[in-house]
Amino acid sequence: MQESERIPPTVAWSGGAIEIIDQTLLPGRLEVIRLATVDSVIEAIRRLAVRGAPAIGGCGALAMVVGLDEQRPASAGDAVAALDRLAARIGAARPTAVNLSWAVGRVRDAAAGEPSPDTIRERALLEAQLIVDEDREACRLIGEYGRAELAGSSVILTHCNTGRLATLGWGTALGVVYAKAAAGEPVRVFACEARPLLQGARLTAWELTRAGIDVTLIADGAAASLLHSGRVQAVLVGADRIAANGDTANKVGTFSLALAAGHAGVPFYVAAPTSTFDPATPSGDRIEIEERSGDEVRTWQGRQSAPDGVKVWNPAFDVTPYGMITGFITEVGVIRPPFPPFGRGHPSPLGEPR
Amino acid sequence: MQESERIPPTVAWSGGAIEIIDQTLLPGRLEVIRLATVDSVIEAIRRLAVRGAPAIGGCGALAMVVGLDEQRPASAGDAVAALDRLAARIGAARPTAVNLSWAVGRVRDAAAGEPSPDTIRERALLEAQLIVDEDREACRLIGEYGRAELAGSSVILTHCNTGRLATLGWGTALGVVYAKAAAGEPVRVFACEARPLLQGARLTAWELTRAGIDVTLIADGAAASLLHSGRVQAVLVGADRIAANGDTANKVGTFSLALAAGHAGVPFYVAAPTSTFDPATPSGDRIEIEERSGDEVRTWQGRQSAPDGVKVWNPAFDVTPYGMITGFITEVGVIRPPFPPFGRGHPSPLGEPR
Repeated sequence: MQESERIPPTVAWSGGAIEIIDQTLLPGRLEVIRLATVDSVIEAIRRLAVRGAPAIGGCGALAMVVGLDEQRPASAGDAVAALDRLAARIGAARPTAVNLSWAVGRVRDAAAGEPSPDTIRERALLEAQLIVDEDREACRLIGEYGRAELAGSSVILTHCNTGRLATLGWGTALGVVYAKAAAGEPVRVFACEARPLLQGARLTAWELTRAGIDVTLIADGAAASLLHSGRVQAVLVGADRIAANGDTANKVGTFSLALAAGHAGVPFYVAAPTSTFDPATPSGDRIEIEERSGDEVRTWQGRQSAPDGVKVWNPAFDVTPYGMITGFITEVGVIRPPFPPFGRGHPSPLGEPR
Repeated sequence: MQESERIPPTVAWSGGAIEIIDQTLLPGRLEVIRLATVDSVIEAIRRLAVRGAPAIGGCGALAMVVGLDEQRPASAGDAVAALDRLAARIGAARPTAVNLSWAVGRVRDAAAGEPSPDTIRERALLEAQLIVDEDREACRLIGEYGRAELAGSSVILTHCNTGRLATLGWGTALGVVYAKAAAGEPVRVFACEARPLLQGARLTAWELTRAGIDVTLIADGAAASLLHSGRVQAVLVGADRIAANGDTANKVGTFSLALAAGHAGVPFYVAAPTSTFDPATPSGDRIEIEERSGDEVRTWQGRQSAPDGVKVWNPAFDVTPYGMITGFITEVGVIRPPFPPFGRGHPSPLGEPR
């Protein structure tokens, strides 16, 4: 794990601005960029320079402070109005991951009661940093709970990227992998490449390789036969939004993995902090699925892979029905079916809708 | 369909050599290359310049004649020995599609009884051209049987490429689409891109666009949610080898589509000529699945999409269990479950093992 320690933080607050790894350049180049305006943060989130539900939550939270610094409100009232506008703008940068709107809302609510622009700014930064710290700790706990849950399962199939690059700690699904490795347990990962943007190939394979963890890359379409072959002991994925009934939005292709895992009798786990649970969304069919540009499918690094102008349907996420999920690995423990109080008149295991 | 008439034949015999479209250059460039040696044919088959089970069958059959012309056997005995060696070499160029070994074996058997090197060469060419002609006719019949079977289903999801570029006619699964279009029936196609080599994006989208057929490209991982959405009325795929029990090897990712179609209640059809049925292989677990270079997943058109040297598992095909298949659309009609005499002590609907 030595190598990985040298990866800069995915999202950091430094000298009044946000610093992120520009993930669009990986695995070819490891470059940290500085975001000193809200516009640049939103652009970075939209073009996936920073991605992963927990990471964009933390980045969005810090962007609230960037926004206050840009606007320099003259009164507490102006500052609160600014926070409201910022929360709406930043929270809408990407629609599916609930962590983003959750994080900006939390910063707004925490800071809005302060008496002056300065204390509002101070409290907003404190709350944003708390969100970052809490996510790091949530990742650690997810790793430990997952390690206990998956004791004896050493071959893991995962999708997209749910590691250091997706969170503010060592990851959610990959956090479990890192926890196993840190405890000296055997662990081996099969990583789906995750078309169209290949976060599995570009990011997961990269960060696991740097951490010295055994990783084998597969095309997304190879997952079903891999699972059928019996070589995988568990599927571990992250989540962008978990509805009140447990339906889970995650990177497109996740639903296919759940179907194949179910058919092969391989357990299928979702690892996510509780900030990913959205009690206000009753079920998966109510989750807004972001559709991205068809160019993501038509081209790769500027090279054309399909005819000019061919129509593309490019949803960034899909929804896995709760009934296919073996359990949710969270920082408060592993939640197993029948997911009490899921589906028992209570909106979620985490209390009332926010 | 006017445009598509101007596409040169996928495989043709011309002036004592084989001419093929170099499919690795599509969709960027439409280029016909000439194969005048067996080595060049095998290389073209291995690097997928020509691909698609029926097309490589026809190409391999013609390559038997190319081989005789290279070797110029002095006696009938020498010619038959040459045919045996050629059938073994060419038939092994790719292991999964049974059409290749079937076609070279058929040319060998047809020609071996002739009395002289000249008549052996003449008969070999005749048989190879017969295979080409029969495949064209098989495609036409598959189209017509499929059109009748899928009357009322106008939105089709397909995988990889099973059209003009994969066969010696207008295709198998895409033959059904072309038959619908030719009959003036509404038809709309969703095409999976088919990683790693993107035959769906590069070839299917290209040939359907040229034929004026409405096509929408998706990442392979998006198929499950597309099927779940109810927007697709049938899944239609081709096959590389169909075992005696109906288990079907086809482009990797097909099994995922079958699982998702089954979950969504969408019919899942395999369209293939009877030359794809392999009565000698009892079930799918006995089909050799070609594993190809990891570079197909690590790079795209020379650009790296994964870290240097990361391990890759890259099977070119997977096996869909017969129980997930609604029916086989062949040139002798549609074969539906319980697939008599599949699984009833008879090896296949097509007679005894060859």
